[in-house]
Amino acid sequence: MPKLDLDTIPQVNLTDYPPQFAHVVAGRWYRRLGPPSGLTHMGVSQVTLKPGAQSSQRHWHAAEDEFVVMLSGAAVLIDDDGEYPMRPGDCASFPGGVRNGHVLVNRSAEDCVFIAVGAGPDTGGGYSDIDMLWRADGRYTTKTGEEYR
Amino acid sequence: MPKLDLDTIPQVNLTDYPPQFAHVVAGRWYRRLGPPSGLTHMGVSQVTLKPGAQSSQRHWHAAEDEFVVMLSGAAVLIDDDGEYPMRPGDCASFPGGVRNGHVLVNRSAEDCVFIAVGAGPDTGGGYSDIDMLWRADGRYTTKTGEEYR
Repeated sequence: MPKLDLDTIPQVNLTDYPPQFAHVVAGRWYRRLGPPSGLTHMGVSQVTLKPGAQSSQRHWHAAEDEFVVMLSGAAVLIDDDGEYPMRPGDCASFPGGVRNGHVLVNRSAEDCVFIAVGAGPDTGGGYSDIDMLWRADGRYTTKTGEEYR
Repeated sequence: MPKLDLDTIPQVNLTDYPPQFAHVVAGRWYRRLGPPSGLTHMGVSQVTLKPGAQSSQRHWHAAEDEFVVMLSGAAVLIDDDGEYPMRPGDCASFPGGVRNGHVLVNRSAEDCVFIAVGAGPDTGGGYSDIDMLWRADGRYTTKTGEEYR
């Protein structure tokens, strides 16, 4: 049925980041909502950040659009221009091709939850604070093209 | 900046439904969040339903995916299979091509707010409870192809 039974969808804290960059997402738990519900034109994740966790390394997408809406708790959105509090109902858009890296960080003492949606071609992107790019084929490299694995 | 200043984005209750079908959305107020924030691969709306209002006529999309997450208040999701309560944090997916018409109805005494996201080609769709289709070019017709306007 269209309404999702969220409790039946696996919640994982996996990452494919190279190990030296993975610690920041150790407390990021997410459910991928698109595949189990049949969506093929967008990716949707319900993301829970434990206290201290962040959503990713600060990053931007070469082409894919990303949209985030906060559901509960408090996070801080960090980008090139500053820090912005995100509370339930707050929204943020990250158009593909805009190289303003973004990340959500939970600096509170409680979990926070948000929905992240992606749509458009995943042609890779880059990271603002570390020497890493991701490629259209999913590989991670340094900014000069050396493989991480 | 990526965080949206929602109060600065116009909130409208427009509809292009033929007049005989428009009354159900008279209390539907929405902000289109994609264009002012530069998103081109998805449509995003923040929708407020006043008590008694519904999100649309009950409908399905021929190809476009739709996703909804509730932010505040209470609505009822109605589809071919029944009625489902939607409360903050609840999510629903409507994959393109699945002809199970859906609508959110606010039967409570308070406003409710949700985010609706669409992605993929808008090639038209249909309405479950009235004699209407919409076409890829935006026209509304009866199910036998007569123009409404």
